Amino acid sequence: MRQEFFDLEINTNGQKLYEFTDKTIKRIKNNNFKNGVLNLNIQHTSASLIVQENADPDVQTDLINYFNKLVPMDNSLYIHTVEGKDDMPAHIKSALTNNQITFSIKNGNLLLGTWQGIYLFEHRLKATTRKIIHHYFGD
Amino acid sequence: MRQEFFDLEINTNGQKLYEFTDKTIKRIKNNNFKNGVLNLNIQHTSASLIVQENADPDVQTDLINYFNKLVPMDNSLYIHTVEGKDDMPAHIKSALTNNQITFSIKNGNLLLGTWQGIYLFEHRLKATTRKIIHHYFGD
Amino acid sequence: MRQEFFDLEINTNGQKLYEFTDKTIKRIKNNNFKNGVLNLNIQHTSASLIVQENADPDVQTDLINYFNKLVPMDNSLYIHTVEGKDDMPAHIKSALTNNQITFSIKNGNLLLGTWQGIYLFEHRLKATTRKIIHHYFGD
Repeated sequence: MRQEFFDLEINTNGQKLYEFTDKTIKRIKNNNFKNGVLNLNIQHTSASLIVQENADPDVQTDLINYFNKLVPMDNSLYIHTVEGKDDMPAHIKSALTNNQITFSIKNGNLLLGTWQGIYLFEHRLKATTRKIIHHYFGD
Repeated sequence: MRQEFFDLEINTNGQKLYEFTDKTIKRIKNNNFKNGVLNLNIQHTSASLIVQENADPDVQTDLINYFNKLVPMDNSLYIHTVEGKDDMPAHIKSALTNNQITFSIKNGNLLLGTWQGIYLFEHRLKATTRKIIHHYFGD
Repeated sequence: MRQEFFDLEINTNGQKLYEFTDKTIKRIKNNNFKNGVLNLNIQHTSASLIVQENADPDVQTDLINYFNKLVPMDNSLYIHTVEGKDDMPAHIKSALTNNQITFSIKNGNLLLGTWQGIYLFEHRLKATTRKIIHHYFGD
């Protein structure tokens, strides 16, 4: 059995979905991972990991708009307001989505559906850097 | 160590919760899985995997109704409307729930609570077929 | 390879976030886990597992208030009402969050971000006991 850990760092610049499917697949290929699980954990509570449709970019726009309506950036609604109007909503959006996903790898291939891509969903307004731990555990 | 992959395909016919706990347990027994993890990934972004109460079916009705109120099937709210009024809401419901769950197996038993069942939560209106990858990794 | 299972039981007393990061880390240290995955499953469908900010407790208050506004405890909205006004909302909050998280352990350390804590998110009003299965799988 074999275990490998590596960090993927992504620079974000506002509320968007940042796809990193290709970066993850490249590491699988370069490290010659064959069969096993790939556990991803984002090390933050104001951004999420999300698997979504990678065909029509309008889906991403609708997702961002929906979540901003569902969780308004309005300081009058929250008591934790010291880090800005987008901070508490970011924590709530994180709770409503995921900060961890486990993928399966079979014969060197990441098992994703045809239209699935892996995204970092950034909930903060300001530019920042996000760290996503990748942990491979397999043969 | 041992790894096994198999696909579970479920035919759906509208917005319902489709329980597949027994199908998953049957495969565990038939394959003589003893101790390990069972990683499930649904290969779609308009249906979810969900663990819910399996006692009172009213819970499922309330869940479906709640999600339809939370994410209205109203094309005026979205820009991604080409695939029908239920499509963008399906992507949002997928983001609000899960497309991946890892279960633990101990002494051949899937570790679920007394009242827990595993469901496919279908968000599309039309009949379709969904693929859920099962990946066993254990002894 | 090595696998270990243990249950963590937490007594809850109403809708709060109950942090158990230290309890989980203590078990990792005491059992000398080195590199592997730690799979957590809560065995209930009316409480959640959540990773959230552990710095400002106001974040937890805002989270609880937000979820109570998003999923009102109002029996007129649901048909599954027999277990109390907080029961169906608890199932819905469970669906909107997570009942399972897989963490990675590297060199004996649980890979959490600086401001991340692991919480049981209790959605029921009455006092109860919750069981969270911990399953270590590693070297």
